[in-house]
Amino acid sequence: MDRTRLRRKPARGNHDRVVIDAIVDEALICHVGFVSPHGPIVIPTTHVRVGDTLYIHGSAVNAMLTTLATGIDACVTITLLDALVYSRTAFHHSVNYRSVVAFGRATEVTDNELKLASLAALIEKVEPGRSRECRLPNPKELKATCVIAMLLTEASAKIRTGPPVADDTPEDAALPYWAGVIPLITTRGERVPA
Amino acid sequence: MDRTRLRRKPARGNHDRVVIDAIVDEALICHVGFVSPHGPIVIPTTHVRVGDTLYIHGSAVNAMLTTLATGIDACVTITLLDALVYSRTAFHHSVNYRSVVAFGRATEVTDNELKLASLAALIEKVEPGRSRECRLPNPKELKATCVIAMLLTEASAKIRTGPPVADDTPEDAALPYWAGVIPLITTRGERVPA
Repeated sequence: MDRTRLRRKPARGNHDRVVIDAIVDEALICHVGFVSPHGPIVIPTTHVRVGDTLYIHGSAVNAMLTTLATGIDACVTITLLDALVYSRTAFHHSVNYRSVVAFGRATEVTDNELKLASLAALIEKVEPGRSRECRLPNPKELKATCVIAMLLTEASAKIRTGPPVADDTPEDAALPYWAGVIPLITTRGERVPA
Repeated sequence: MDRTRLRRKPARGNHDRVVIDAIVDEALICHVGFVSPHGPIVIPTTHVRVGDTLYIHGSAVNAMLTTLATGIDACVTITLLDALVYSRTAFHHSVNYRSVVAFGRATEVTDNELKLASLAALIEKVEPGRSRECRLPNPKELKATCVIAMLLTEASAKIRTGPPVADDTPEDAALPYWAGVIPLITTRGERVPA
């Protein structure tokens, strides 16, 4: 569709669902954009993908979720920042990243079994096995939780990878400055028991 | 203002500029939301704060920047994900985070000195001293770069920190599952020369 066509640097773009799914699944949070009565707003939240569907949850009285559940246009963007890219010139400094922009309209998940499955999938995504190592939501907790679903059918990925672009001139290439890539690595630290 | 009033969990909210600035400065990227002809859209990009102003840059033909430069409503959201929070119940699983939501309208920076200063500030933010260890933009590169500025006057921070909330019942508290906090730590890996 036209709005997923990549205008800038289309060589970085990708509509392959395998590529898109891998980015969506690796990221712990997404940023959800929609138009509120006050104008455009972007809210960060956790998410999980199951098949073609992205699930987002929160309190049953969460303003974003209840607004999105009315079926308004939404945009969910997911970004993984992989590295800093240093060039000899400020102009060619960049970052390596993998991002997904998904457009769609959400619906509320009202089926309790599907709701539970999506919440268990989120827990499993964060830590495989964990959905069997905590108590899953009871009917009261399910009722207090709103889950919305959005199909990932109108999505595109954009990826930059690799070293800085080549210097524009021999003079730039001869500059005595360091150029290269500095990876950004996210790890889980030591567990702190409650 | 009304749209920066925190509706959900106001105890997590903060309008203190020192708190807001620290989050903005620590984050390497932000997510910019605005209304395109196709509906709401959210795009990730780098940013730098100088005083009260947030600067975002890119190619002079970048669609987002040229659209924002017309002065439409925008929302810039910045999120730092600090930890996973595990409870004995799925319901109380959470994440520790620090986020800022800033509303405003951007203007294009047309003064070349200010433009250059904002680009140097971004390089300095990523690595102090680096703006003197690369060649700063020449007039041709400056012309090929669009910088927009947005005042951070209508912003709020939201922060969750600390352990999971207390279990709701003695039965939950007695469940044989691990509860606590798992920090998420981002580090810079070994430099890879180009």
